[in-house]
Amino acid sequence: MSKPLILVSNDDGITSNGIRFLVEVMSTLGEVIVVAPNSPQSGMGHAITIGQPLRLVKSSIFEDLGVKAYECSGTPADCVKLAKHHVLKNRNPDLVVSGINHGSNLAVSVLYSGTMSAAIEGAIEGFPAIGYSLSDFSHDADFSHTADFVKHIAEQVLKNGLNRGVALNVNFPPKQNEKIKGIKICRQAKAHWEEEFDHRKDPYGRPYFWLAGNFVNNDKGEDTDVWAVDHNYVAVVPCQYDLTAHHAIAQINDDWDFE
Amino acid sequence: MSKPLILVSNDDGITSNGIRFLVEVMSTLGEVIVVAPNSPQSGMGHAITIGQPLRLVKSSIFEDLGVKAYECSGTPADCVKLAKHHVLKNRNPDLVVSGINHGSNLAVSVLYSGTMSAAIEGAIEGFPAIGYSLSDFSHDADFSHTADFVKHIAEQVLKNGLNRGVALNVNFPPKQNEKIKGIKICRQAKAHWEEEFDHRKDPYGRPYFWLAGNFVNNDKGEDTDVWAVDHNYVAVVPCQYDLTAHHAIAQINDDWDFE
Repeated sequence: MSKPLILVSNDDGITSNGIRFLVEVMSTLGEVIVVAPNSPQSGMGHAITIGQPLRLVKSSIFEDLGVKAYECSGTPADCVKLAKHHVLKNRNPDLVVSGINHGSNLAVSVLYSGTMSAAIEGAIEGFPAIGYSLSDFSHDADFSHTADFVKHIAEQVLKNGLNRGVALNVNFPPKQNEKIKGIKICRQAKAHWEEEFDHRKDPYGRPYFWLAGNFVNNDKGEDTDVWAVDHNYVAVVPCQYDLTAHHAIAQINDDWDFE
Repeated sequence: MSKPLILVSNDDGITSNGIRFLVEVMSTLGEVIVVAPNSPQSGMGHAITIGQPLRLVKSSIFEDLGVKAYECSGTPADCVKLAKHHVLKNRNPDLVVSGINHGSNLAVSVLYSGTMSAAIEGAIEGFPAIGYSLSDFSHDADFSHTADFVKHIAEQVLKNGLNRGVALNVNFPPKQNEKIKGIKICRQAKAHWEEEFDHRKDPYGRPYFWLAGNFVNNDKGEDTDVWAVDHNYVAVVPCQYDLTAHHAIAQINDDWDFE
């Protein structure tokens, strides 16, 4: 069997430590090609670039690892689309991975996450896909404790595949003295952000706002991604892009007056 | 009972015809406040602005309708967050509506849609929410045939509420000679975009790409949003932001080797 083809992207940008770590691990599993944003794209959700053109430039950033790379002016979802249609052309990746994100993407954060949008775009294109995130926002976050799990989860997906339309959202606890306890397959916690806006004045007296906030979890379930990471497990949530609330269809048909 | 408070946003920007039409209809139902982007935000998905500050400026654009409005430099999701925390403060909207989008948001397009991100952000904040879209991209699209349905659906939601965590994705067929046949409660079709990138050279000889593509539907189900709009019905899809693929959890637990 030939080596699997693995497409790597992220949302922190091609120069971040997290993507370098991921490229190093993936290089032990197959042939790696990187198409990643040329600037940070955190919080971009599933944005795509439709109002302006995209640039795609070859990069030598991973030459030391023998890995081909391209940097793109667009969003993570754009990167995966351009990779499929222009970089890989007639070759389909056996796996699309995104990350490792500097910062967790737990609970509803999956919606805002550029990291997960690259993975979900991979799933939309029909490829097995994984987004990896570490619960440590710092630029020089330590990823070393995640290596064996990053590799093992990718191996499991390469071996078993994923249901059509499903991408994995993988979150790691930050590096601690205690070793990671293991992997939990989880559901997305019903936690949310309680925003605050920091209201300031610019030097010309005009108001502006910084979005800030606290993560609030009232979901005490022990089957959630938040619980797993809080208890030093790797959280794996299978995610789908069919947003239909199937349970609500019958109820609306029952409740509503149709004219 | 006091008049309901209705928050209106969109992704085409505060000057688009679609939001003016929506404001006019909502004004017949309650007190309307508009917080909408100051520029087009199509394709922004659930992006939020975390790397730079946000501007929010009072606008007189809907003064002729007696409606207060604010324009925001951010994304549709930012607009809803700023509306809740800064504009409305201690008042909760009884309904959040977004649109009417110039162009449909059917099938997987819901992920890329700024229109739906405003509605889903409303649902995350705990408010009943509806995103409206018309299958006509043109700037001067005719919305007149949708008025009764826009109002009726909003009335149903005000009367019956929506399950916590659910927002409605409403799509209208374009104006045709035949009257709209009615409303269908649907699931999201398993249709997708087949992208093409238009590869060009700039005046300096450097390559760039335009994202383009065709909408492809192989999902023949008559319970889908695509089917409904194609057959001149209003498509209503209840959407959720819990992306967990619950059906995949047991399977992964069964398939995987956990070390």
